[in-house]
Amino acid sequence: MERKFNDTFLRAARGEKTEHVPVWYMRQAGRSQPEYRAIKEKYSLFEITHQPELCAYVTKLPVDQYNNDAAILYKDIMSPLPALGVDVEIKSGVGPVIANPIRSKADVDRLGEIHPEEDVPYVLDTIKILTQEQLNVPLIGFAGAPFTLASYMIEGGPSKNYNKTKAFMYAEPEAWNALMDKLTEMTITYVKSQIKAGAKAVQIFDSWVGALNVADYRQFIKPTMNKIFSSLREENVPLIMFGVGASHLAMEWHDLPLDVVGLDWRLSIQEARERGITKAVQGNLDPAILLAPWEVIEERAKAILDQGMAQPGFIFNLGHGVFPEVKPETLKKLTAFVHEYSASKLSK
Amino acid sequence: MERKFNDTFLRAARGEKTEHVPVWYMRQAGRSQPEYRAIKEKYSLFEITHQPELCAYVTKLPVDQYNNDAAILYKDIMSPLPALGVDVEIKSGVGPVIANPIRSKADVDRLGEIHPEEDVPYVLDTIKILTQEQLNVPLIGFAGAPFTLASYMIEGGPSKNYNKTKAFMYAEPEAWNALMDKLTEMTITYVKSQIKAGAKAVQIFDSWVGALNVADYRQFIKPTMNKIFSSLREENVPLIMFGVGASHLAMEWHDLPLDVVGLDWRLSIQEARERGITKAVQGNLDPAILLAPWEVIEERAKAILDQGMAQPGFIFNLGHGVFPEVKPETLKKLTAFVHEYSASKLSK
Repeated sequence: MERKFNDTFLRAARGEKTEHVPVWYMRQAGRSQPEYRAIKEKYSLFEITHQPELCAYVTKLPVDQYNNDAAILYKDIMSPLPALGVDVEIKSGVGPVIANPIRSKADVDRLGEIHPEEDVPYVLDTIKILTQEQLNVPLIGFAGAPFTLASYMIEGGPSKNYNKTKAFMYAEPEAWNALMDKLTEMTITYVKSQIKAGAKAVQIFDSWVGALNVADYRQFIKPTMNKIFSSLREENVPLIMFGVGASHLAMEWHDLPLDVVGLDWRLSIQEARERGITKAVQGNLDPAILLAPWEVIEERAKAILDQGMAQPGFIFNLGHGVFPEVKPETLKKLTAFVHEYSASKLSK
Repeated sequence: MERKFNDTFLRAARGEKTEHVPVWYMRQAGRSQPEYRAIKEKYSLFEITHQPELCAYVTKLPVDQYNNDAAILYKDIMSPLPALGVDVEIKSGVGPVIANPIRSKADVDRLGEIHPEEDVPYVLDTIKILTQEQLNVPLIGFAGAPFTLASYMIEGGPSKNYNKTKAFMYAEPEAWNALMDKLTEMTITYVKSQIKAGAKAVQIFDSWVGALNVADYRQFIKPTMNKIFSSLREENVPLIMFGVGASHLAMEWHDLPLDVVGLDWRLSIQEARERGITKAVQGNLDPAILLAPWEVIEERAKAILDQGMAQPGFIFNLGHGVFPEVKPETLKKLTAFVHEYSASKLSK
């Protein structure tokens, strides 16, 4: 590689001092980019993720365009599920739809295991292309967490209230635990294969776990997450946790053997620090603000940076994914602002 | 009335000691009841709410069946909007859909005012029938809060992320404030007419305001809510605040001139008390638990009651509305359990 490898993101994730605050955006690759939309006219999501060269291009594009400090593998959290026998299809405008939802312990017992080299070779090939040849920033691998995956597998698709999922959890704790165990094993195997292929950090998306109260999280989910992070810790790459609307669980995440607590905009960085989160934090601009005039965006980003830079270990991100209506120029300008503003403060 | 008026709910809402913990359930009237579903086969929601006798029957039914300590007027938070010129229709399986969404300050300026006697006489007639003749428990009147109403008016229907609403709020603060002012005035007028007709308490539903961060709530919403509660306070009836996924705003609500902080299940009663909420609280069983086996329901209800009874001023409720799959027997059994368990503890 010609350019020096930019490890700012990795250092911040480990709580070390950096020269500027590193930036990346959840869903930085995707429908907000005109180049992506053009590709999407020719290929389906399935086709894009199954062609490593194309998928690498999609993953790298926003890094080049916005000058972000990390890339995140372009794929869906559902990707590993077909290997377990889950019949999942991503329906446009709906989300993941599952033809054979989990209804019983027998359905859980029927689930298989993942063998990444055989089941998702295209994921590993994409990572290799990116990390061995193309990227000069770290590539973040990722996986959905067991609760969030289970919610799709039980509801049969996206849900508003996760009633079926919770009912299953409360009514059939044995089947629930068996399901968590299978998904835990899958997550560990899948993520370790991503790290082996070249991923330099990992983010676990428990996108919908904020639907649970703290007591249920402790009883039904935390042991599972503890197993996952304890095992991934052996790989010695930074581990990040994220979920939406999960402010009430932030201290639970902080207890887990992970490196970075990802926050959405509902909990300010300052309040997270006041509650006792001493680990590195990542976040947390409300992506809706990206539709506001630039002065508003800058004001809000500045407030987040001032709070985040109060101690080492801060990664700037959004509080949720970029959505299609956001203009690429806005993200480019935002990255430049975060870099310049933080560099000026941190050099003092 | 033959039976003595049961004012337990009102006393608890004022923070006074009671002989048992009062109970009611959000959406206690509705699709979870077979009698309601039978009515719904003959009449639309519009037709039910426009026939005072029928609407009173629907409102009273769960009170009689479950022995609950309060009734809540059966209607939708959208009901007052047509009076302002909002073209709203409740679409089955979708929710409220608005044909003329707000796009500009001019759209806001075009909004009219509500004159309850002329615009919603059927609401007032329903309240009169219930409170003058039928109920021996308090009737709770209600209204949607400005942010939640505005979210429908701007998005044009239900939304996942409220992007348009937030973008409007950030980009056009003048138009936003004008919209809040109109909705504030409407809410005050509408709720006062309900109280005059006989409602003995009021719950304000800011169902979706949890999508905002604390700083935005303080800047864009809190002054509005302060105006509403300050004006309603003159009526001397208990005022309750509620929203879903809004744990991070609970202390903001506590600051407002209201009587009861409604909590969803994400924040435990104990933690709410620890954070400094000294007012009466209402909540907060996750309605999904109503699909669990009875032992689970009882265990969770008991935990909530133990926390809630630690000081006077506790109303048992769910953390969100009853949904259609819940069996009426379960709610009846739950009310009986809350009454008996709390009475046995409070008599000691």
